[in-house]
Amino acid sequence: MDKDKRELGQHISRQYDHDLEDLRSRVLSMGGLVEQQLADALSAMVGGDTRLARQVVDRDYQVNALEVALDEQCSHILARRQPAAGDLRLIIAVIKTITDLERIGDQAERVARNAIELSEMERPRDKLVVRHMGELARKLLHDSLDAFARMDVDLAHEVTKRDLEIDREYEAFVRQLITYMMEDPRSIRWTLAFLWSARALERIGDHSKNICEYLIYMALGKDIRHTDPQQRAQELEGD
Amino acid sequence: MDKDKRELGQHISRQYDHDLEDLRSRVLSMGGLVEQQLADALSAMVGGDTRLARQVVDRDYQVNALEVALDEQCSHILARRQPAAGDLRLIIAVIKTITDLERIGDQAERVARNAIELSEMERPRDKLVVRHMGELARKLLHDSLDAFARMDVDLAHEVTKRDLEIDREYEAFVRQLITYMMEDPRSIRWTLAFLWSARALERIGDHSKNICEYLIYMALGKDIRHTDPQQRAQELEGD
Repeated sequence: MDKDKRELGQHISRQYDHDLEDLRSRVLSMGGLVEQQLADALSAMVGGDTRLARQVVDRDYQVNALEVALDEQCSHILARRQPAAGDLRLIIAVIKTITDLERIGDQAERVARNAIELSEMERPRDKLVVRHMGELARKLLHDSLDAFARMDVDLAHEVTKRDLEIDREYEAFVRQLITYMMEDPRSIRWTLAFLWSARALERIGDHSKNICEYLIYMALGKDIRHTDPQQRAQELEGD
Repeated sequence: MDKDKRELGQHISRQYDHDLEDLRSRVLSMGGLVEQQLADALSAMVGGDTRLARQVVDRDYQVNALEVALDEQCSHILARRQPAAGDLRLIIAVIKTITDLERIGDQAERVARNAIELSEMERPRDKLVVRHMGELARKLLHDSLDAFARMDVDLAHEVTKRDLEIDREYEAFVRQLITYMMEDPRSIRWTLAFLWSARALERIGDHSKNICEYLIYMALGKDIRHTDPQQRAQELEGD
């Protein structure tokens, strides 16, 4: 009888582990889809490929549907398993992470819409700047998902610091675009399309940083949001 | 013995109700602070009051601190009370709502920073447009918090539809600002400051809508995100 109970207990706990593992892997699938959306939006922008840009716009509903499904899955686990401590932090981190992933998807869609607007124009120099910002944003998103997949707190800390790079790039690009606008008012329409794209990429950096901060909270049980990255780095060294 | 147990049960359940009530009322306090930040940022913009604008910037850390504290409170309730069904949905809705409130606080701070930038300039006409958009945003935020306080699903549905108004206002204002830019390149710097403020107010509309969607999910156990407002209205009538 005791043996049966123990086996049942192990069975339940295996099932529970499976639920959590499934949740984590579905978050990573959602992350993969969002990464693809961003990559396609950037290719569409740089290559002037409106067909690809429209695909990104059309596919956004898939990202939204995944967010809703994952929220539902989190609710089920909370209600059925009543997780505590680390598992509870995992689920709270997932609820927050998927909100940020969905918003990264929205920003990728925004870049795709700007790509359609810009497809007629020849501005190779500015496309290079957007491409570079886009690469930074993609790398931040990719590394934040990688940190999530491997529960790598060091990498997560690193990403939160690297977000400053994309902010600096954004500020410089905006200054450059304002100069173009002033030099030639006919440039205003396309300049604004670049401005919105740059802003979207900068926001993707912020959302990636958020994901890393949830991960650190999940791993350490310590909330580092709204604290100074410099100070955080020192704390980490002191850990 | 049974009586003791029953009394203990009632005691625990009273304590639990108290925890949930306390959580709800702290969300509303956070909402009140964010409303005040937005109101002050708009007054600072319209009145050119840089002192008030700096107060808004300095006070943003209070909003951030409330978000962290409320997340912590949600974790505690989840771990200690293991809520199910409606209570669980309340807590998930709270976790999401405070993220949106914190971001509304960020947008209010952005408006305050633009107010500092614009304080030197005399553009009464455009300030009127920003004031009008600001009033719409404030009303949406206020009503979404009111819906949350009274668990008013009808009002929540109404707010999700009214978000379209602010979107239309935003589009019209952006078109107007582009015309100014084209007419006079010297206007570009202040025009951009208005543009960023208008964008911030439009985003506040989106966040208020999000809060209402969480509320509807919490009240009905039905996720209406990413669905068409028209269709939602019909569903509501059919309910």
